[in-house]
Amino acid sequence: MQVNAEREGVGSKGEATRQRIIQHALELAGRVGLEGLSIGDLAHELGLSKSGLFAHFKSKERLQLDVLDTAAELFRARVFEPALRKRRGEERLVALFENCVKWINARNLPGGCVYIAGAFEWDDRQGPVRQRVVEWFDKFHMALVRAARQTRDEHQFAAEVDVEQFANDLHAILMKYHLEARLMRNKKALPRARHAFERLLADARG
Amino acid sequence: MQVNAEREGVGSKGEATRQRIIQHALELAGRVGLEGLSIGDLAHELGLSKSGLFAHFKSKERLQLDVLDTAAELFRARVFEPALRKRRGEERLVALFENCVKWINARNLPGGCVYIAGAFEWDDRQGPVRQRVVEWFDKFHMALVRAARQTRDEHQFAAEVDVEQFANDLHAILMKYHLEARLMRNKKALPRARHAFERLLADARG
Repeated sequence: MQVNAEREGVGSKGEATRQRIIQHALELAGRVGLEGLSIGDLAHELGLSKSGLFAHFKSKERLQLDVLDTAAELFRARVFEPALRKRRGEERLVALFENCVKWINARNLPGGCVYIAGAFEWDDRQGPVRQRVVEWFDKFHMALVRAARQTRDEHQFAAEVDVEQFANDLHAILMKYHLEARLMRNKKALPRARHAFERLLADARG
Repeated sequence: MQVNAEREGVGSKGEATRQRIIQHALELAGRVGLEGLSIGDLAHELGLSKSGLFAHFKSKERLQLDVLDTAAELFRARVFEPALRKRRGEERLVALFENCVKWINARNLPGGCVYIAGAFEWDDRQGPVRQRVVEWFDKFHMALVRAARQTRDEHQFAAEVDVEQFANDLHAILMKYHLEARLMRNKKALPRARHAFERLLADARG
């Protein structure tokens, strides 16, 4: 109720501005981190007043949470949804892997994934931002587990495959790929990630 | 020369203070990130004047570089050195893995490893801090490659093992372990990391 009242207060033009601010905040968070997000800097970059930005977000924490939710929605649209259109089993797992690779390289996420950056930025803090990051990784893990379980149920993996371990190991490959592609700018980043993924698939087939 | 002159300027008592500041900065960087390090906050927490801190570091960048160098020295003493006292081959590789696990859980690094946090914080920026982080990961990678190559040379791994890929995959396991242990506080983090490492070793033995 409170959130709706606030949004009504700024109107539909306000909502468009709000979306524009969040998009820019997502890019800024990629560059400076979630904690580095400053309403002042954001206002300056967008040519808006600081008080105007406060009318939309009330607090830095609200802005951080909105940035995370926007990234989650983008991830759903770009990674999960196209993978769900693929056939259950290895085909869908491969699509998840390839879509994550594209996500990690996305040009309009200039600082890389805000969740992975948030994971190391927020690991020892408390509060709603950390909680949102944790919940997202739980959700991501469950999606990988589900896809691995379906692949096992389709008899493309051996019956004894530990699907939780599979999801763990797949995420490990993607995290390392993020580091090698974006920090190290290593030309072998992708062949190495693919090789590790192939080894994981081969072991799971049994 | 300039650096020496500066250090002479603050004297040996100054050097002790400088070390105390860096130690505290290392802990603070773990909590707030390298970019979140502020000479003002640090001065406040240590009960020193901001101008006093500037006398030691001249700039935030100098402080960030000193924090990274201090972390690298600690890592060398706690991870590399004890592993080098182990027999070449799998024994040393296992020691590297176990020492990294201890490092990731270290109580006096409350925010986790500043390099891994820096990797995602600095991936799209330029400058000496990013460069220092990149150089460190290169060095870490080479140490893992060397240990894997020795294991192959000792005939504990198959002759055709790709030691670069092995090092890549080992680092992936450790990165994921950091996320699961520190962000997710997952009780299965260590068994999963060990299982992945066992699978990596088993595949390398051929």
